[in-house]
Order: sequence, then structure tokens, then C-alpha cells
Amino acid sequence: MNDETPDWVMDVLDVNCPSRDVFVDLADKWSLLLLVSLRFVGAQRFSELQRSVGGISRAMLAQSLKSLERDGVVVRDVDGKVAPPRVVYDLTPLGEELADESRVLCDWSQRRSDEVHAARKAFDESRSARDVAAQPA
Amino acid sequence: MNDETPDWVMDVLDVNCPSRDVFVDLADKWSLLLLVSLRFVGAQRFSELQRSVGGISRAMLAQSLKSLERDGVVVRDVDGKVAPPRVVYDLTPLGEELADESRVLCDWSQRRSDEVHAARKAFDESRSARDVAAQPA
Repeated sequence: MNDETPDWVMDVLDVNCPSRDVFVDLADKWSLLLLVSLRFVGAQRFSELQRSVGGISRAMLAQSLKSLERDGVVVRDVDGKVAPPRVVYDLTPLGEELADESRVLCDWSQRRSDEVHAARKAFDESRSARDVAAQPA
Repeated sequence: MNDETPDWVMDVLDVNCPSRDVFVDLADKWSLLLLVSLRFVGAQRFSELQRSVGGISRAMLAQSLKSLERDGVVVRDVDGKVAPPRVVYDLTPLGEELADESRVLCDWSQRRSDEVHAARKAFDESRSARDVAAQPA
């Protein structure tokens, strides 16, 4: 940390700062994938979201939706005119904005996917070469 | 999911897609905070990073750094000319690019912090009002 470090960096790194507290809730793979799905696929029921976001468990989906609703980025709409009541999750305007911002991480992951996978392969190969070299003769 | 859903959305939501696999490694609070610290504070030793990123444990820091190094976004430089050897972590050019992209989430957290905290307060109050109403007389 030095005098030239921007304020927003110091805030987000500081565990006592309100913006850090917001960041940790949202900088999470499931939260971000749910926001992206709701933004680009549209409002969905619980079971539709579970199919949309591959690999998410029911418990994690329920917990993530509750956290996003509490943060004011997702809204739970209940249509009581049908029986049983139809519950649909959608984004608030704040959530739409965040989903649009989150897109940069998805874009980056897609654009740099080959490079990251190549780096992983090289890393794993250098580790196993080192392990072989370290084995007793 | 429908025909108008963009390809990049379908990719990142698909558990079998290579870019999803990259996304889940990096869309994580500790990974993103480490990238931001290395980008805007500069190259750091392990203990400096632990102080910089408030609240991270030693075990989580070690695990996150190894994962970021494997993904090719962080490099571990060992200066063997001093004793004991000095180990410093820094970003690769790929990591610098990702850190710059991640900034949007930090900016958003800071810009919308008040609104998110107000939403949390309203959510918690409506829950406790409901709990009181549901109590037996």
C-alpha cells in the first residue's frame, strides 16, 4: 500500500469498508452466473434456473437467490392468481446493471480460455517433472 | 434458454464448456482481490499480500496463489541471489488484463454500496416483521 494506491482499491481490500462487504457477496461464481442467466435468458422459475446454470445444487441455488434478493439485485415475483402460486425470479434495475458489468468477466473467460488451459497444462507438466526428479533413485 | 440467447452466455453457463471452467476459477472474491492488489499496489511477498488483502487466511492465500499461478495470471519470482531466497508474486501480462477487467466489479460495489446496504436493511426488517406476525398469540 502506498500513497499512490487509488482509494477504490484501498476500500475494496479493507475488510471494514462497506463496499468490500458488497463486493464479497457478489464476486462469487454462482451469483454472477445467476445474474448473467437472468439478464440474457430472462426471468425464470427455480427449476428453470437450476437447469440454466449447469452444476448448481438446489441448496446452493436457494442460498444464492436469497442472498441476491437481500442485496436488492434479484426480485422474487409471486403470481397468486394461479394455483399453485407461480414464483418467478427476475432482476431489479440494479441487478440488470450489475449483470451488464459482470459480462466483462465472462467475455474474458471465453476470449482467453485457450491461453489459461495452456498455462494449466504447462504448470501441471512442470510439477510432475519436478516430482519425478525429486524421487529417490 | 432460447434461440436468441448469445453464444457466450450459453458457454459460460454450460458446465462442459472450457470457458466456464476458466470462469469458475477466477470469479471468486479472493482471486479477484489478489489480482486487484497485485495490479494497483504492485508485486508483493506472501506476507505483504496477506496484509494487503484484509481477512484472507494463510491457507486460502496459498491455495489462491497456486491456482492463479496455474492459470497463468500470476507469476512467482524467486530471487536466489539473497539468503534466504526472496519470493515475490506478480501479475503476468494476462493477469494484468484480467485485473483491469475485474475493476468494473470493484467500481460497481463502491458506487452502489449505499443502495445494496439499504436493500439488505429493508429485507431484514420485512423478514423480522413477518416472523413477529407469524408468532402464536
